[in-house]
Amino acid sequence: MNNDPLDPCEKIRVAFKVIEGGVTAARGYQAAAISCGIKNPEATRLDLALITSDGPTVTDAVFTTNKVRAACVRVCQLNIKESDIRAIIANSGNANACTGLQGIQDAKAMCKSTAESLGVRMKQVLVCSTGIIGMNMPIQRITPRIAELAEKLTPSGNDDAARAIMTSDTKPKSYAIEVPLGKGQSFRIGGIAKGAGMICPNMATMLSFITTDAKLSKDELKRAMRFAVDQSFNRITIDGDTSTNDTVIVMSNGQATAPAIKKGSPEAEIFRCALQKVMMELAKMIVSDGERVTKFVEIRVRNARTLSDAKKAAEAVGKSLLVKCSFNGSDPNWGRIIHAVGYSGARIREELIDIYFGGIQACKGGLTSKTPVTELEKVVKEPRFSVTIDLNSGNANHIVYTTDLSSAYVDFNSSEYSAAIHAKRQKGLV
Amino acid sequence: MNNDPLDPCEKIRVAFKVIEGGVTAARGYQAAAISCGIKNPEATRLDLALITSDGPTVTDAVFTTNKVRAACVRVCQLNIKESDIRAIIANSGNANACTGLQGIQDAKAMCKSTAESLGVRMKQVLVCSTGIIGMNMPIQRITPRIAELAEKLTPSGNDDAARAIMTSDTKPKSYAIEVPLGKGQSFRIGGIAKGAGMICPNMATMLSFITTDAKLSKDELKRAMRFAVDQSFNRITIDGDTSTNDTVIVMSNGQATAPAIKKGSPEAEIFRCALQKVMMELAKMIVSDGERVTKFVEIRVRNARTLSDAKKAAEAVGKSLLVKCSFNGSDPNWGRIIHAVGYSGARIREELIDIYFGGIQACKGGLTSKTPVTELEKVVKEPRFSVTIDLNSGNANHIVYTTDLSSAYVDFNSSEYSAAIHAKRQKGLV
Repeated sequence: MNNDPLDPCEKIRVAFKVIEGGVTAARGYQAAAISCGIKNPEATRLDLALITSDGPTVTDAVFTTNKVRAACVRVCQLNIKESDIRAIIANSGNANACTGLQGIQDAKAMCKSTAESLGVRMKQVLVCSTGIIGMNMPIQRITPRIAELAEKLTPSGNDDAARAIMTSDTKPKSYAIEVPLGKGQSFRIGGIAKGAGMICPNMATMLSFITTDAKLSKDELKRAMRFAVDQSFNRITIDGDTSTNDTVIVMSNGQATAPAIKKGSPEAEIFRCALQKVMMELAKMIVSDGERVTKFVEIRVRNARTLSDAKKAAEAVGKSLLVKCSFNGSDPNWGRIIHAVGYSGARIREELIDIYFGGIQACKGGLTSKTPVTELEKVVKEPRFSVTIDLNSGNANHIVYTTDLSSAYVDFNSSEYSAAIHAKRQKGLV
Repeated sequence: MNNDPLDPCEKIRVAFKVIEGGVTAARGYQAAAISCGIKNPEATRLDLALITSDGPTVTDAVFTTNKVRAACVRVCQLNIKESDIRAIIANSGNANACTGLQGIQDAKAMCKSTAESLGVRMKQVLVCSTGIIGMNMPIQRITPRIAELAEKLTPSGNDDAARAIMTSDTKPKSYAIEVPLGKGQSFRIGGIAKGAGMICPNMATMLSFITTDAKLSKDELKRAMRFAVDQSFNRITIDGDTSTNDTVIVMSNGQATAPAIKKGSPEAEIFRCALQKVMMELAKMIVSDGERVTKFVEIRVRNARTLSDAKKAAEAVGKSLLVKCSFNGSDPNWGRIIHAVGYSGARIREELIDIYFGGIQACKGGLTSKTPVTELEKVVKEPRFSVTIDLNSGNANHIVYTTDLSSAYVDFNSSEYSAAIHAKRQKGLV
């Protein structure tokens, strides 16, 4: 194995400290959440979140690549053209996907109520939904409550907001850092995320809302966003399914004490890597909290002919059902890994491939190594480990973060729709 | 829904009758199997099969697209250039994949022993293996037994051969038909197959050996082979993994009573569709007997813009973990189906999509239909049903045959390698 960095930010030493406050850690942001009973009128869990900036922002977002796009994604794609986004309204319990014109009206109604409550224009609000596909939003239980939600906004609202966007997540996910920049000055970046099911490269059912007080142009923000998403959220896979609702939003309001960040400057590089750090931590939280997941596994492909070959190999291994089943059983089954590399489409030579669990070699030149299987088992019995696949064919590297596949995942995902419909019928809602 | 045939052979009425005898149903073929203890020296299950033609053949084969190819596949790819294949020697219990030069030597040794026992040249023998990847063949337990195996050859050896190539299959798979052609004349086609795990379009861990006594040229056989494989084995998916060992072999020895089949003749079309019929029946047996499968589902995509769009959509739905989980739970979750269509890469318009379970509409124009969910549940509770996805965007159609994904599949696949190594260690074999 050579020592080429798999992560371009490994070379950039970003001094930072982890701080409290998640999506409200940066200066000038507030958040709040309430319970509207979106999934179930009787439930009391938080399911509607609001995040706001006290002043003007530049904002960028990336959305699902799924051609079936939720109504909220469509509305966001219109509103993001606006120059000064001030708020994100987000619900769990219903994805507002496959809901047609009614869905668009509902998403716009959520923006409108939010705008009215905050005294901004409707187009300054982004809207996100996550939950079941194909059912209309219970909008009459949502819009009348938004004024009350806006009144609860507070700079310490992060935890409630992180909780309100959860679906099958078992834990709220938030993270924030402060980065020194200038003389005794700094900027902050923080965010929240939700994940759990339908997680896969190219944006999956995941939402992540990130705020920063760094001062920078929209162009510079876009550049940093593309870079950081590609290094983080686009590298995670739980079940290979890309959802209809995925959205990552970054708002920056320029209220930091640090000076403005100029295009092409060393500071721009620091910002990019700081943003990546926050996204990567949130992405890892999503993977670790995947539906009924028991293992977190880094798939590191080294020395591929090209980056495209490295990506194909890493993604095929990260998505292979048989590989994920063997992770679940703590089985160091390198044969399944090499077979996934083989069908990945990556240009490889079987007889050059080395495979390691942790640092322990399982396969050497395409053949079984001399390592006793008990040594390999020690590695894969851990809840977190890495698999390194050295293709010995070039110098391109790629990492994917994946999980095992448990029988509990299958059981958990086997009756969502019927259960939801029957629950509604019992309550006289359909 | 329109009524364009999804299957080009629907229009060709091939009169046929189903006959006994599988891979030995056609005239001039024999088979046999013995137990060599390949996986486990103490086991008594059949694990080595031999299939022979009594006279000259033209033979064609298609192999895995996986770039990691088993040693036996490499040897077959050399030998298939030979004009007159006479035998197939096949074992279960070890895939002879990722076994390097030793693997090639072992595969050749199997051909050599077989050739000596039959009095043919080594290059007239094809060799196939299926089982675990990455362990050397216990060749000393195989080659000395091949003479004995050859002595057991009989025209009624089909059932033993079908059983000997099973791995995690629960049932042997064989099928044969007789097709009238000419005055009181006929040809026969029959075969055996094994499947179970690692099944996915583009050839998966599946082996299928088919024999026919039809008289036809190698070119015509190749054409029929490509057509029939594309309509059958390349449309099945159990877990989306393409194996290192997949092989389909068709031998034809021209011993039928029916006259020779000429290129471009109506008889050539009948042969092609008859071959497809046999392959399709074997393919369906493989899917129905997938590892821990409880459902057999036809994914029918209609009215796509192009065939490529139809294939992308059908394959994405057939492979989606979340869709397969919902099949397992008898959940008519059309939202997951449309979301898989959305990320498939097919060019679609969400608002045109209709989805049916059986003949019952679940989704109309991208929105939920008015059908009560109990009606849909009746369909998906059946062990076999179809899902029709009408894209209403063109006139290209495609079918994929898939299964549910059960929690038992995951448990079943979670510890193969460790279990195999530990079993070997206990017996002092490693």
